[in-house]
Amino acid sequence: METEEEKSIARFGVSIPYDLIRTFDKYIRERAYNNRSEAIRDLIREKLIEREWGKELKGQKVVGVITYVYDHHKRKLVNSIIDIQHNFPEHVIVSQHIHLDHCICLEVVVVRGGPVTVRNLTYKLKALKGVKHCQLTMTTTGTSLS
Amino acid sequence: METEEEKSIARFGVSIPYDLIRTFDKYIRERAYNNRSEAIRDLIREKLIEREWGKELKGQKVVGVITYVYDHHKRKLVNSIIDIQHNFPEHVIVSQHIHLDHCICLEVVVVRGGPVTVRNLTYKLKALKGVKHCQLTMTTTGTSLS
Amino acid sequence: METEEEKSIARFGVSIPYDLIRTFDKYIRERAYNNRSEAIRDLIREKLIEREWGKELKGQKVVGVITYVYDHHKRKLVNSIIDIQHNFPEHVIVSQHIHLDHCICLEVVVVRGGPVTVRNLTYKLKALKGVKHCQLTMTTTGTSLS
Amino acid sequence: METEEEKSIARFGVSIPYDLIRTFDKYIRERAYNNRSEAIRDLIREKLIEREWGKELKGQKVVGVITYVYDHHKRKLVNSIIDIQHNFPEHVIVSQHIHLDHCICLEVVVVRGGPVTVRNLTYKLKALKGVKHCQLTMTTTGTSLS
Repeated sequence: METEEEKSIARFGVSIPYDLIRTFDKYIRERAYNNRSEAIRDLIREKLIEREWGKELKGQKVVGVITYVYDHHKRKLVNSIIDIQHNFPEHVIVSQHIHLDHCICLEVVVVRGGPVTVRNLTYKLKALKGVKHCQLTMTTTGTSLS
Repeated sequence: METEEEKSIARFGVSIPYDLIRTFDKYIRERAYNNRSEAIRDLIREKLIEREWGKELKGQKVVGVITYVYDHHKRKLVNSIIDIQHNFPEHVIVSQHIHLDHCICLEVVVVRGGPVTVRNLTYKLKALKGVKHCQLTMTTTGTSLS
Repeated sequence: METEEEKSIARFGVSIPYDLIRTFDKYIRERAYNNRSEAIRDLIREKLIEREWGKELKGQKVVGVITYVYDHHKRKLVNSIIDIQHNFPEHVIVSQHIHLDHCICLEVVVVRGGPVTVRNLTYKLKALKGVKHCQLTMTTTGTSLS
Repeated sequence: METEEEKSIARFGVSIPYDLIRTFDKYIRERAYNNRSEAIRDLIREKLIEREWGKELKGQKVVGVITYVYDHHKRKLVNSIIDIQHNFPEHVIVSQHIHLDHCICLEVVVVRGGPVTVRNLTYKLKALKGVKHCQLTMTTTGTSLS
């Protein structure tokens, strides 16, 4: 009897030149994949997550992780960061703070919402004086990529 | 009297065509920067952090944030994730877990170390079956970007 | 007396921590820039060209360079490539063909038009069987970046 | 009887959740692919070309297309561009010039060589005053991606 998990799996064939698959197999080993299927599922999911963040799918919910590094000695910076996040109360899931050294902090904020909103929150944090680096990692709720 | 902070600031002039600076000023407003200096410092720091992660500076310590989304129902996946992280005990600073829904988890792992090591840890997590998406955000200890 | 060129130049000051500018000066030397102004103008123009290609400026004309590599022995491929380009007669400026070896050709197509149209032409060429690699370089008419 | 082309083709199966393949099929239609195999071959080749350009394969020959936009009225710029290209006589295959308008030129230079050399040539052109935008498209000789 198949489990729930096994039932939902499709199988299909790929035809590919021998030279290409031989080089791909090297890549698979270098990247520690167990088999071609897992590597190919990863390639597919990467493209589909790019697509989720694209303009053609506005209204869709995505998950973003905003990472920024700052000097907590900068006057008023900590308050500005908190204020900005509080303007997005329905979107910010959690914020984590790491002390990299005496001066430098790294924060990681997990956000769920529309791609435009998540980008706007990122831009606001990035623009603050004293924030040295701010980046948005675009990922997924996972819903359509089971 | 100047404060410690003010003393460490350099000032230099940039010459730039009027057309270019007018369009850049629009960008600055869209991105919520307070002034040109802050926007330009951000552009500079982005390039320098890319440079820190580049091959020419091996041996340098960087900070990476690894973000991945997975289904915690997958057999053995949670254990594999923990095992991999425990093989990098000097590098993993902290790991944070968010429940996106009944099945899907998001984890954010903050890592400090050489660029090659941080990339290798990322590849190992990315290659696991059941990990739907895994990305590395490349950031900085902030030390040389004060 | 100032020339036309000199008249159109603005000058403004940037304040920046000493540590940051010292590291930036290393980057400038590595990348063969003559001075900070030229390096900063390049950083600015890169961001503005990304902005031209972004969704918020639809209707604006951009310039794209489509590069693809293919095996000219594939049946019908050459005809398909020509047909696709002929469906964009107002956009394709020129197409150049290089013989990389006995089998492999590289073509470079310069296109002017809206960002969406240029991307669509790229996708159509990329999807052809026998086209091994196809990439779009997003650049500019230069009009607003004088 | 099989042709030479058909003989060199491998076939293998991929297992994938139904939800994932359904969304991927939408992507395939949007991007004008004829079938899943062609789309997957493209995903694979993209990763392998990134790998060719990576540090671990130094010594390998790649093909780069350098695209830059400049104002030909800038004093000495045209000569500087030619001089730089002549310092790479074994690498520059061909250079093409397009007049975008009265002032602005676009040039496309096709280069074959090691990744480091091709990047260095790009940086030298990019650093010239009057070059508004300069980008490197990283592609392949096609040899190992048949």
